[in-house]
This record gives sequence, C-alpha cells and structure tokens, in this order.
Amino acid sequence: LPAGFFDHPDMMMTATDPAILGPGLLGGSIAMALRHLHPGSNVRIWGRRKEAVDFIGKNEIAAVASTDLAEVVGGADLVILCVPVGAMGELASRLREHLAPGAIVTDVGSVKLPVLETIGPILGNRFVGSHPMAGSEKFGIGAARADLFRGAVSIVTPTAASCPEAVGRVRAFWEGLGSEVRELSPEEHDRTVALVSHLPHLIAAALVDFVCLENRDALNFCGAGFRDTTRVAAGPAKMWTEILLENREAMRAALRSFGRHLAAVEPHFDDPDALDAFLSRAAEQRDSVSVRRNRSSWPTGK
Amino acid sequence: LPAGFFDHPDMMMTATDPAILGPGLLGGSIAMALRHLHPGSNVRIWGRRKEAVDFIGKNEIAAVASTDLAEVVGGADLVILCVPVGAMGELASRLREHLAPGAIVTDVGSVKLPVLETIGPILGNRFVGSHPMAGSEKFGIGAARADLFRGAVSIVTPTAASCPEAVGRVRAFWEGLGSEVRELSPEEHDRTVALVSHLPHLIAAALVDFVCLENRDALNFCGAGFRDTTRVAAGPAKMWTEILLENREAMRAALRSFGRHLAAVEPHFDDPDALDAFLSRAAEQRDSVSVRRNRSSWPTGK
Repeated sequence: LPAGFFDHPDMMMTATDPAILGPGLLGGSIAMALRHLHPGSNVRIWGRRKEAVDFIGKNEIAAVASTDLAEVVGGADLVILCVPVGAMGELASRLREHLAPGAIVTDVGSVKLPVLETIGPILGNRFVGSHPMAGSEKFGIGAARADLFRGAVSIVTPTAASCPEAVGRVRAFWEGLGSEVRELSPEEHDRTVALVSHLPHLIAAALVDFVCLENRDALNFCGAGFRDTTRVAAGPAKMWTEILLENREAMRAALRSFGRHLAAVEPHFDDPDALDAFLSRAAEQRDSVSVRRNRSSWPTGK
Repeated sequence: LPAGFFDHPDMMMTATDPAILGPGLLGGSIAMALRHLHPGSNVRIWGRRKEAVDFIGKNEIAAVASTDLAEVVGGADLVILCVPVGAMGELASRLREHLAPGAIVTDVGSVKLPVLETIGPILGNRFVGSHPMAGSEKFGIGAARADLFRGAVSIVTPTAASCPEAVGRVRAFWEGLGSEVRELSPEEHDRTVALVSHLPHLIAAALVDFVCLENRDALNFCGAGFRDTTRVAAGPAKMWTEILLENREAMRAALRSFGRHLAAVEPHFDDPDALDAFLSRAAEQRDSVSVRRNRSSWPTGK
C-alpha cells in the first residue's frame, strides 16, 4: 500500500489519488462526488478525446486531466475504468505498465463476467470489478452529478482469487461516494442485473415501440405513468446494444420467462379476485423497494 | 348559462361555482388548483365520509364542504364526478334532481365508454366525459397537489349528441387548470388509454412480480431505472383492478399484441444491427414524448 493511504481521517479507506479513465456520465460523476465529499483527494482523469479533457480542465473538475495515460495512471492508488466494456481490454493492457506498486483497478461496467474474462488475465488480482447501480437516460459529462451515487447500491464482484484487502478498498471507495455496497459473484451479478436493469430496459423500449406501431397518436395522450415507465428507453442505443449483447444468455432466458409470466396475466381478466391479488402483491413488493431506497443517507464528507 | 359566467376575466370560461364530488387525489387536486389559479371561484366539495369533509373544512380547501349532496350540487354551474367509476351511476341518479338550470356534469374516470353507458341515460347531454391524464401511485387528498394538471393532457370525450357549448365549458375548465385539452370519442379514448396507461400499469406490475418470483433478493440491487419503470405498480390495487376490468376487451387485445411484440425482440440477439435499430427507434420515439411535455406552460392565474 502507498504510504499515507490510511492517514486521511475523513476519507477512511478511500483512495487519495484516484484515476478515472473515461470522462462520461459515470466518470464525471465520480470526479464531482470526490470533489464534493473528499476535497483532499487528488483526482486524475484520462480521456481519449482532447476536447473532453479540456472541458474538465476548464471546469476544475479534477486536479489532473490528460489524454496521456502514463501521466494519469502513474502515481494513482486506485484506477477506475469508466469506458465502454468493449474498450476495457485494450485499455487494461495499455495501463498495466504504468500502474504504481500497490495500485488496484476497478471498473463501472454493466456486466461483470465478460469484464472479468477480459481483464482478469491482464491484471490478475489487482482487479476487482464493480457496478454502481446509478445512471441516467442522459449521457456524457454534461449529465454528471455529484450525488449520482448517493443512496444507490454499488455492487462489488470479487472472485475466489480476489485479495480481501483489495476488495475492501474498492468497497470503501463506493461507500465514500455515498452508496451502499453489496457483494455478488460476477455470475450472480449478471443474472441479477438482467432482471432489474437489462430486462426493464428492453421492456420499456418494446412498450414505446409497440405503442407507436399500434397508434402513433397515442403518445400525445400519455401521462406521468407512461413517461416514467418508459424513461430508460430514451437511453443511448449504442451503449445499450453493447450491454444487452454482453449479457445475452441471461437476457434471452429472462425475456422468455417474462413473456410466459405476462401471458399468465390474461386469465385474471376472468377472475377479479385473481387480478386484485396479483396487483396487490405487486404493489406491496414495489413499496418495499421505495422503503429500502429511503433508508439511505448522504455522507456528510468534510 | 348562469348570470355572470363570463364576467371573470381571469377565469375565462371556467366555472365560477364548481362542485367536486369525491375528495380524493383528483378531487382534492382540482380544488387546490382552483384555489391557486382562480381564487374567485366558489369551490364546493361533497364527500361520503364525514372525516374527509371535516379535513377539507379545517384546511380551507373549499368554500363549501359537506356530506349533503343537495347543499353542494344546488347552485353549482359545473359538477365534476371524482368518485370511482363503479359509484358514478348511483351518484348521477341522486344528484340529478339538485342540478341547477344550465349546470353541466363531467367526470374524471379512467374509462369513458362504461361511464357514458351508465350516466348518459341519466343526465343526457348535460354530461360530457373527461379524463385528465394526471395521477400518482399515491392516493387520497393527502397526495393532492395544485399543479397536478399542469402540462398534463386532459382528454374530453364528446359524442355526436353532445352540445358544443357544454363541450366548450368542460374544455375551458381543464385548460383553466393548466392542462392541454384533446378530444377523442369515448371508444377512441378507451383504446388509447389501454395503450399508454393501462397496459404500462399491467406490465409494471408483472415485472415487479416476475423479479420477486425469479430472485427476491434482486430487488435489493435495483437502481433508478427499475424504480421508475415500476413506479405505477405501487398504485392502489383495488382502484386499478376496477379500471382494468372496465377496459377489459381493449386490455386483452393489447396484452396479446404486446406479448407477440416482445417475443419478436429475442431474435435481435442474433443480429446486433437489428437490436441497435430497435433501441434507436425506441429512444427517438421516447424522446419525442419529453419534447411534447416540455412545451406545456403553467397558466399564471390571478
């Protein structure tokens, strides 16, 4: 471990020199959250495009903003990969030689098994995957917010080969941004997000598409319910195509099972008690989600 | 028309003595919006339960709050039925004898053909149906908000027998609360809301239920996407059972077609370009919804 890693009482186990690779919605939000909650940390951002890096420099979002990977990664104690999953393998290969002794690497990818299969052979147990369950249908650093991770669940995905100390540092990093950390294996993670993130996205997209095909004009009559139910469908298509394809086996299974589940609802229209029981159960279950969310609190920071 | 109906420059054609029957989320929000935007109006509320009426009296939400139908309806120029659709027939029969000359009646029911079939024979062309596409998963006057109708679409559903002047007054009423009015026939209305309101509700409920059956623990990992996609499923089950059953034929048809549409998504997992095209189309269509919504403006009122 770098000297001084535990010397910052307000930061606990959070990194003092975090390097964010990829200045998009998540990378930008991590930088803003660190600035707000841990003003002592020395945030470094790497971006592929000069314009993005210049924007960060101009807005004083990070201490170091550069297109030079060696400059950003050298000296960092924690590197967070915030690029698309498809770009992570090449980036991990390039950054490896610049990693300081004791530095560890995590990522924010929406799937974990494909990331592990790509990065694991390159970085070994210096890599521990993670996935903050926070986002927006908007994208890019323009949509970044310091409170994006506040109260959100961040999933950390160690394997049997992971070093407990590295896992602890990645956990502490996400806790330090205000999120609640849970651990899942990469396989469990991918099955879980297929259910609570990827399938809902696909359903929202299918619903918008269906309504347009059935009656384009109906969109002029929608209320807050339709807008919320389909909000995620406005997300960037290219990114979601990549995410869904990376989790394709879990997605195919989830889509088929959900199709059968939905078909089983129709008979309830012959049985008011069954329809009421179905809707009551769903309402109760959905309420439990809000309760969990509302328990979370915002760390006060320094 | 009652004398003075057009004498309030800030109220245009809005009713001066509106009677709201049923002090729930919608009835309460109408009263609060009238108070805020049209402080000159003499708002009257009828409730079945004494406690609800007392609550309104204590909070000065209306000029008259009573469990006595004759007291509230007599002297009103516009009566708005805000009770469950199943209770409207009996209420219409009871209020008929108290209606002032020239007074008209509308409602806020989520289905329009069943309401027309029930109330039409009782009130004839003094009744013009409407449906403000605004609501919440919460219910009761405690969730009422003066801006509930702001920027929302309110659908008015005249028939060939409707008197244009009565239709105009109902339109002006909803416009006066800040909503954008569109006209549909009762049949068109019911098919449209099956698509943009009732089907999304059923899908949201099925999604929550499905995730719980597949992996109850997955709910602990959900982000803002899942919460928004399923928000409406937390709505009152009894009310939604009634709404869905009243629109049962349109719902069965919509459910079956949507099931086929969703099943047709799976082959896209073998064809990245098709998946990208599908998600791009949905994102573009969904974006158009936000654009329309953002155009709406809040009337300044008096």
